[in-house]
Amino acid sequence: MTLVTEQTREMESGKRANRLVLVVTKDTLDQVYPPMILATTAASSGMEVDVYFTFWGLRLLDKKSHGKTKLASVGNPALPMPNILGVLPGMTGMATRMMKGKIKKYWPTIPEMMQQAKDLGVRFHACSPTMGLMGVKESDLIPLTDDIVSASTFLEWATSPGTATIFI
Amino acid sequence: MTLVTEQTREMESGKRANRLVLVVTKDTLDQVYPPMILATTAASSGMEVDVYFTFWGLRLLDKKSHGKTKLASVGNPALPMPNILGVLPGMTGMATRMMKGKIKKYWPTIPEMMQQAKDLGVRFHACSPTMGLMGVKESDLIPLTDDIVSASTFLEWATSPGTATIFI
Amino acid sequence: MTLVTEQTREMESGKRANRLVLVVTKDTLDQVYPPMILATTAASSGMEVDVYFTFWGLRLLDKKSHGKTKLASVGNPALPMPNILGVLPGMTGMATRMMKGKIKKYWPTIPEMMQQAKDLGVRFHACSPTMGLMGVKESDLIPLTDDIVSASTFLEWATSPGTATIFI
Repeated sequence: MTLVTEQTREMESGKRANRLVLVVTKDTLDQVYPPMILATTAASSGMEVDVYFTFWGLRLLDKKSHGKTKLASVGNPALPMPNILGVLPGMTGMATRMMKGKIKKYWPTIPEMMQQAKDLGVRFHACSPTMGLMGVKESDLIPLTDDIVSASTFLEWATSPGTATIFI
Repeated sequence: MTLVTEQTREMESGKRANRLVLVVTKDTLDQVYPPMILATTAASSGMEVDVYFTFWGLRLLDKKSHGKTKLASVGNPALPMPNILGVLPGMTGMATRMMKGKIKKYWPTIPEMMQQAKDLGVRFHACSPTMGLMGVKESDLIPLTDDIVSASTFLEWATSPGTATIFI
Repeated sequence: MTLVTEQTREMESGKRANRLVLVVTKDTLDQVYPPMILATTAASSGMEVDVYFTFWGLRLLDKKSHGKTKLASVGNPALPMPNILGVLPGMTGMATRMMKGKIKKYWPTIPEMMQQAKDLGVRFHACSPTMGLMGVKESDLIPLTDDIVSASTFLEWATSPGTATIFI
C-alpha cells in the first residue's frame, strides 16, 4: 500500500495550473496593461495563455480602435486631476499622453505588447455574443485574432482542470 | 498496479468545475450583462450557478433600484462621447437609452435575464455585510432573492473544489 | 481494491483551497473595502491570505497616499448624484465624506482594516513591475508591506493548487 499512499499524497497536493485564461472587458490603459503583462509573463514561463476579449475589450481586436486605448481623465479619484478639469475638452487626451509618457519607460505600447504576446504563443479570442453590440464585424478583426468564440466555450475553458481564470 | 495507475492519471487530470460562483459588485449595464450572460449560459449547460450581489450590485436585488441599471456617460474613454458632454444633465439617461437600444437587439432586459436565470435554477444571494451600507433592508429584496449570505459563506463556496469563481 | 476506490473518491472530490490571493488594482473606497473584508474574513477562518497591490492599488502601500482613498463622485450612475454636480470642485471630497460616514457604522477605516488584517497574519505585497509607473519607491512603502514581488511570482501563487485568486 505504500506506493498508493505516496501517489495519493502527490495527487492530493494537486498540480499547478498550466493554462491561464484572461478576460479583457475594458479598453482603458490601466485595465489593458495588467492582462498584457500577465499574458506575456505567463507565456514566457511556458504556460498556455488564452485572452478572451469581450465588451469594451473587443475594441483592442477591432482595426478601427486598435492602438487607440485611452486613460479616463475623470471618475478615478486616484488621479491627481480634479474632475472639473478632467471633463474639459482635450483632457482625456492629455491624461492619456501623460500616462503613455510614463508607461513607455517601462513597457512597449499596447499593440507592441499584443504582438509580443502572440510571438510567445498567446491566443487571442473575440467574444462572439458581444461583437454585434460593440459594432465589430468579422472583417474588422486585426490579424492577431485567432478566432471568434462563444460564451459557452469560454466557460468550458474557465472550468477546466489546471486552468486559472482572471477576469479584468 | 495498472488499475491504480489508470485511476491516478484520471485523477491527476482533475475534474471540470461543475459550479460557477459569480460576484456582481457594480450596477452599470456593461458590468451586469456579462455575469447574467455567463449565469444563463452556465445554467443551460447544466452547471450549478450562484450569483453573489454585493456593494452596488445589491441594487439589482433591491425593489427600489431593480430594473434601473444605467450606463455611465463619463469616465469611460471607450465611449464615443466627450466628458464635457457626458456630464450635462440628461446625458447618463441618453447614453443609457442608446446602449439599451443596441442591447435589445441581442438580449432581454436585465430584469428579464434575471428571471430567465432563475427559471434555469440560478441562485441569487444578497451579501449580508454590505446591505446596511447600501441601504437595503430584507423587506426591500425582490422575490427572486434566495437568501442573505455572509462573506464567510461566500468564501467557503469560492474555495470549494470543483468551483470556478468570477469577480466582476 | 476497496481502499483504493475509497481514497479515489475522496481525491476526486478534491480539497478546499486553503490560500486566498487577492489582487487590489484600484484605490477607491468601493474597490478597497471588498478585498479588505475578504482578507480579514478568510484569515479569521484560518486561511493563508496574500494581497497583491498593483497599479492604483499600490497607493494603499505608499506613505504619500495611504489613508487617502476616495470615492469617485462621477462616472458611477449607481450614485445618487448627477455628473454635472459630481464634477464641481469639492464633490469628490463630499461624496467621500458621505460614504465614509456611512461606512464607519459598519467597518473600521481602511488603514485600521489593513492593520487588523496584518494582525491576523495577512501578507501585503507590492507589485514590482508597476512601482516605477506609479511613482512608488521602496522607501515610500508603509511598514505593513511584507515585500516587493514580481508578476511571475504572483502568477506562481495564482496557479498553485489549493489557491483561490480574486482579482478586484
